[in-house]
Amino acid sequence: MTSPAKPFNRLLLTGAAGGLGKELRQRLKPFCNTLRLSDIANITPADDNQEEIQLCDLSDKQAVHHLVDGVDAIVHFGGVSVERPFEEILGANICGVFHIYEAARRHGVKRVIFASSNHVIGFHKQTEVLDALSPRRPDSYYGLSKCYGEDTASFYFDRYGIETLTIRIGSSFAEPQNRRMLSTWLSFDDLTQLIARGLYTDAIGHTVVYGASNNTPNWWDNRYAAHLGYQPQDSAEQFREKVEAQPMPPADDPTMVYQGGAFVAAGPFGDN
Amino acid sequence: MTSPAKPFNRLLLTGAAGGLGKELRQRLKPFCNTLRLSDIANITPADDNQEEIQLCDLSDKQAVHHLVDGVDAIVHFGGVSVERPFEEILGANICGVFHIYEAARRHGVKRVIFASSNHVIGFHKQTEVLDALSPRRPDSYYGLSKCYGEDTASFYFDRYGIETLTIRIGSSFAEPQNRRMLSTWLSFDDLTQLIARGLYTDAIGHTVVYGASNNTPNWWDNRYAAHLGYQPQDSAEQFREKVEAQPMPPADDPTMVYQGGAFVAAGPFGDN
Amino acid sequence: MTSPAKPFNRLLLTGAAGGLGKELRQRLKPFCNTLRLSDIANITPADDNQEEIQLCDLSDKQAVHHLVDGVDAIVHFGGVSVERPFEEILGANICGVFHIYEAARRHGVKRVIFASSNHVIGFHKQTEVLDALSPRRPDSYYGLSKCYGEDTASFYFDRYGIETLTIRIGSSFAEPQNRRMLSTWLSFDDLTQLIARGLYTDAIGHTVVYGASNNTPNWWDNRYAAHLGYQPQDSAEQFREKVEAQPMPPADDPTMVYQGGAFVAAGPFGDN
Amino acid sequence: MTSPAKPFNRLLLTGAAGGLGKELRQRLKPFCNTLRLSDIANITPADDNQEEIQLCDLSDKQAVHHLVDGVDAIVHFGGVSVERPFEEILGANICGVFHIYEAARRHGVKRVIFASSNHVIGFHKQTEVLDALSPRRPDSYYGLSKCYGEDTASFYFDRYGIETLTIRIGSSFAEPQNRRMLSTWLSFDDLTQLIARGLYTDAIGHTVVYGASNNTPNWWDNRYAAHLGYQPQDSAEQFREKVEAQPMPPADDPTMVYQGGAFVAAGPFGDN
Amino acid sequence: MTSPAKPFNRLLLTGAAGGLGKELRQRLKPFCNTLRLSDIANITPADDNQEEIQLCDLSDKQAVHHLVDGVDAIVHFGGVSVERPFEEILGANICGVFHIYEAARRHGVKRVIFASSNHVIGFHKQTEVLDALSPRRPDSYYGLSKCYGEDTASFYFDRYGIETLTIRIGSSFAEPQNRRMLSTWLSFDDLTQLIARGLYTDAIGHTVVYGASNNTPNWWDNRYAAHLGYQPQDSAEQFREKVEAQPMPPADDPTMVYQGGAFVAAGPFGDN
Amino acid sequence: MTSPAKPFNRLLLTGAAGGLGKELRQRLKPFCNTLRLSDIANITPADDNQEEIQLCDLSDKQAVHHLVDGVDAIVHFGGVSVERPFEEILGANICGVFHIYEAARRHGVKRVIFASSNHVIGFHKQTEVLDALSPRRPDSYYGLSKCYGEDTASFYFDRYGIETLTIRIGSSFAEPQNRRMLSTWLSFDDLTQLIARGLYTDAIGHTVVYGASNNTPNWWDNRYAAHLGYQPQDSAEQFREKVEAQPMPPADDPTMVYQGGAFVAAGPFGDN
Repeated sequence: MTSPAKPFNRLLLTGAAGGLGKELRQRLKPFCNTLRLSDIANITPADDNQEEIQLCDLSDKQAVHHLVDGVDAIVHFGGVSVERPFEEILGANICGVFHIYEAARRHGVKRVIFASSNHVIGFHKQTEVLDALSPRRPDSYYGLSKCYGEDTASFYFDRYGIETLTIRIGSSFAEPQNRRMLSTWLSFDDLTQLIARGLYTDAIGHTVVYGASNNTPNWWDNRYAAHLGYQPQDSAEQFREKVEAQPMPPADDPTMVYQGGAFVAAGPFGDN
Repeated sequence: MTSPAKPFNRLLLTGAAGGLGKELRQRLKPFCNTLRLSDIANITPADDNQEEIQLCDLSDKQAVHHLVDGVDAIVHFGGVSVERPFEEILGANICGVFHIYEAARRHGVKRVIFASSNHVIGFHKQTEVLDALSPRRPDSYYGLSKCYGEDTASFYFDRYGIETLTIRIGSSFAEPQNRRMLSTWLSFDDLTQLIARGLYTDAIGHTVVYGASNNTPNWWDNRYAAHLGYQPQDSAEQFREKVEAQPMPPADDPTMVYQGGAFVAAGPFGDN
Repeated sequence: MTSPAKPFNRLLLTGAAGGLGKELRQRLKPFCNTLRLSDIANITPADDNQEEIQLCDLSDKQAVHHLVDGVDAIVHFGGVSVERPFEEILGANICGVFHIYEAARRHGVKRVIFASSNHVIGFHKQTEVLDALSPRRPDSYYGLSKCYGEDTASFYFDRYGIETLTIRIGSSFAEPQNRRMLSTWLSFDDLTQLIARGLYTDAIGHTVVYGASNNTPNWWDNRYAAHLGYQPQDSAEQFREKVEAQPMPPADDPTMVYQGGAFVAAGPFGDN
Repeated sequence: MTSPAKPFNRLLLTGAAGGLGKELRQRLKPFCNTLRLSDIANITPADDNQEEIQLCDLSDKQAVHHLVDGVDAIVHFGGVSVERPFEEILGANICGVFHIYEAARRHGVKRVIFASSNHVIGFHKQTEVLDALSPRRPDSYYGLSKCYGEDTASFYFDRYGIETLTIRIGSSFAEPQNRRMLSTWLSFDDLTQLIARGLYTDAIGHTVVYGASNNTPNWWDNRYAAHLGYQPQDSAEQFREKVEAQPMPPADDPTMVYQGGAFVAAGPFGDN
Repeated sequence: MTSPAKPFNRLLLTGAAGGLGKELRQRLKPFCNTLRLSDIANITPADDNQEEIQLCDLSDKQAVHHLVDGVDAIVHFGGVSVERPFEEILGANICGVFHIYEAARRHGVKRVIFASSNHVIGFHKQTEVLDALSPRRPDSYYGLSKCYGEDTASFYFDRYGIETLTIRIGSSFAEPQNRRMLSTWLSFDDLTQLIARGLYTDAIGHTVVYGASNNTPNWWDNRYAAHLGYQPQDSAEQFREKVEAQPMPPADDPTMVYQGGAFVAAGPFGDN
Repeated sequence: MTSPAKPFNRLLLTGAAGGLGKELRQRLKPFCNTLRLSDIANITPADDNQEEIQLCDLSDKQAVHHLVDGVDAIVHFGGVSVERPFEEILGANICGVFHIYEAARRHGVKRVIFASSNHVIGFHKQTEVLDALSPRRPDSYYGLSKCYGEDTASFYFDRYGIETLTIRIGSSFAEPQNRRMLSTWLSFDDLTQLIARGLYTDAIGHTVVYGASNNTPNWWDNRYAAHLGYQPQDSAEQFREKVEAQPMPPADDPTMVYQGGAFVAAGPFGDN
């Protein structure tokens, strides 16, 4: 894919202070004239005039509506991205994604990139190959909230025509950190490619794509997202030797059995 | 199915003051020694000593945990059952179903009957035949909350072994009220049969069944719930003449096109 | 299905002088105020004033456009219904069905019942179970022309919104005439029911249904036409003893092997 | 199905002294002029002249070839029908079925009814619905031998055109004996119907049918055997009350979890 | 694939004066001793003695039979290749393909390469992935005629054993001419490879293959033509920058929505 | 895949004197401290001290139990590998594979690599694409014995948790020997990779993989073995010219029609 034209005047990135948000900050600039960055945490201003920064608690409906006002597309990476107690997930992820879509509807935004997660299918075994029509099997409160986000995207397309690319992100880090990530790793560049294809491909409706680089083994079959033309350029294979130098976990360790890895055994929390 | 033995000492029915709850109140008594009835609204006490009544706001975690303490199975019909603003749905249905399952986990309840709805698949056209593996297409905020409940049931089985029968209820009324309900109608007796099979069939894991009587046409194929042995005894056909005496809606009326009927066009609400 | 209301003012029946046309002539009258009857052959006028008769060669474009002018729906049973040389099939069936749909488009007719045939799938073996998505395997020049008609129906719905019920008629006679027809028989009453459901069911798009009574064995699965609610009332079973009194054909006789029966071995004709 | 004509001059029934063999002895007589009965155990001669009795050890190749000489079709119910040590299974079932087919090939017999068993799929859970294309999951040495027999039937059809109806018999007894058999029960009359349809239906190739009466729940979908026209006339439902009076086994008892019931936990034997 | 042996003495290419015909003229010569070229339009004779030229109107049965006499295989690219009034399509494409197959039958030709088109599936959306078993959705009179050709190929194989490779050609030009062709483009070399594999692969029966180069995105899955071993060597990707310099059509332009592109909106013609 | 760690102390290779066994002898050494080699035929001792040699007739239960004692994993390539009379196949392959698994169970071996064969699916045509869920169609007595081995592997995993990689070996020779092997060829290095992945991949349960190099055409789709991450490094394509210099067999030669090639026409033997 050559560098795309810049059809978006103002693009919103939520979660801009998070791990992925920081990586995406520079990478999204070619796609817009103005990049509106948002997070609940502080964001250090850039010294260019392409950025605008707006703090926002995603559980706050009015704040989200204000945030979305004036943007042309939304890259929604905000919210909690690990397993946490239900109450934290509820506000940031469930209310958050709902407010984002309601705001999109009211302000006429027609395209969303939604950062979903492999944890919506995490209770499938690593011996299974999944596609976008496979039954989900969420593995955590976090995974449940992402299921809710995916269903919300489906509803807002069927009802209001707002198009979404849902990316079921595997493990997006600088490099794979354990054996499981040899399958689930998604390089920052491949993630950026996915976002670009989600922004610039016409008529995507609600498309679900698994976000992984060109890894082996590959548990995920993107046949129902073929129209995106996603072609991962990176592979976890180059990190294999380094990763396999780690001690081998027991064969029944969740990270060796389930696609969702350690999440299937996280929680419950506190007095639960 | 002959009358079942009474393996349950104490059964909890939530939503007992609602339309279906009132119908189920007598019908569930053969399945337990004590029937604990709950609702947010007042429930008139019965003059038998098989019932116990406990008011409860499902969005109140502590109240729900107290409610579930001591019961052997849960028939969860509580919450909002029509399209309402998100905030109302959120507390009663999303928090509500979560608290029910967390309470089940903590108090060792191993079997739940969950009243889901055809509105989780309501944006499918009436020319489609669906089964339990068909992609969902929720049609409303209400439908989205039922999706969340289904996913929660899936998670609590995979993670904690709590078994659920999810009933995607069509239209459960004394008789079908419009043309669409000639397909979606579920008689109270057939609903009761489904609950009984959900309570007494072994090893159901998380089973999804569509709740309709023996109607024609039939949009829903229960092949993946065959182990329940559900055999509807009623049919909407006997009400056809009466229903077809109603004026014909326009051909593009949602009730003539979508499985979810009018819900696909309900909302948004207020200042939304 | 109770007797339907009469929403059609004028209904066109082509092929009215043919075997099935004669049977349908009386049976279609409850569905319209005026029944326009057409054939290339002479039709004896009825002594009621519900009928109007209009001779027409279906291969004659102008004649067909004239024929369709003023009708509200078309029941297209005209054309050649047995295996014949290509040139005969071409005019009556291929040009014929095309002219019918073009005329429907120009005159605003929005509903067609198309008499297709099991001979579009006739080269499937009798051990196979087919549904509407099974690949076709036409068995004759005749079958090829019916394939063309089905594709034409598909095109006119996708392009112009004209809705069609395509009935893949098995063997519609007063009673089954040989062993194969114990599976393929379609009683006149069940055929009439199919036409009625095709006329009165909303939003059928282009629906394909196999036309057979409630026979055993049953090679055809109408799961993708479930929205029609077709419930055959007759069965070939009552004629079994009579049919099985016929001498048994050899085991490799086409009528014992292929769903299309003798058609798979008919033709070619003349100097071919 | 009305009483069939008698196209077979001489029919062979193996296993004639076994439980099912004794039931079938009278029931098969309408299908042949002479019924050759065979078993390794003694068979009391009948006082009619339709029978001929020939003892035979199925593991003895020459004896089997002698047994098959002169017959027109084979109903193969012989061999071991419960879980036993491998060596016993090997001779009676694996060598036995092979010798039967080799003898059929050499003596020109073109039709076999093979008594297979639900134990070829016994490790599937009772919540699954299977059809003839579902992967097998044998549950025992016995089940493995039946798998071998099914594959042998497949091979002898592909290679030599010998046609077989493989019946995966559920539980064929006078009446169901436990809860699991409420699903798996096959009445003697329904079994006889299956054999008749296997003998008289043309062009069956190698057809696999599940042998169960019209029970609820029904784990087995015979869609790929629709050409047989099998219509079970009996149902286990009439015995439900009697069966459910038995004490309930624990929920994780194999008879409550697996389709194969107790077989999944039988064996290994002796010094194993 | 290395250069094939030359098993064909005389190969017929119809449509030799058309756009693709001119390209194929040289490319087919390695596959035969004599290349018979035909078209309704004039063809300039070559100065080699490998060619023979025979003008032919494909709608003329006798002329086609004369044309086919003496050839060993047929590469059928003749007829109308754009949307035109029905009457023009009828003669050249429907009668034309029928005459070709009848002539093949009478003259003992056993292998045909049929130039079908993506317009047999053109009403599928660009977000769908299709394979050879996907339902067709023709987008034009032209597409309907190609459907008829495909069905004719199916029939002549089932009935007379004539084998065909049906190539659903995407967009075969020197280079892709618009955004849609970045997916549908088929280079002349890749087309030639497909023809070669269709001529030289054994036992192809009636195989349907989508004709596209190695493009991204790729809407078409050739899994049911894997036995051809087709390996496209070209890709539209190298032309992306040039194509994307064109002005962007509106998002609901048919070329951006449907696989068939502009054809879905072509016609009807004249007084239609 | 980089060179694996050596988690196995003692690895057993059966069939070590056979064609593949000789190739594997050196290639398996990196995977173990001690390689136990076994065959019914003599094996020349190596001059290293990594090997230990133990002759064994696989049909001898006690000998097999002795052979398996003390090993950590089994690579089972022993037995007859061509079509032979049933009695030879019975002892070496059927009894052999059973004894291997019983011995594994008794001695606590948890991982087996089973050399199955394309002859379990050999009666499928070369125009079909198969995956691990496709119905088997064995083509020979030999193929039947491999079916029995695969079923045995399935049983021992379901019942006893012994994990197996079943490799359906295509044609593993130094180079492809005929046209069919251009599709079925498996290089020794790719076979070794498969064995390594079968030994070192966690949680494989009973996985079935087709053993072919990166050939064109490719009849076999390994989608259900994706978790192995098998990436063939060799291809038959480099041998195409040499192979295609062989005389062309007739078009109906089994090696040109069936995936199993000549096996489908081998046997029967001797007095058969």
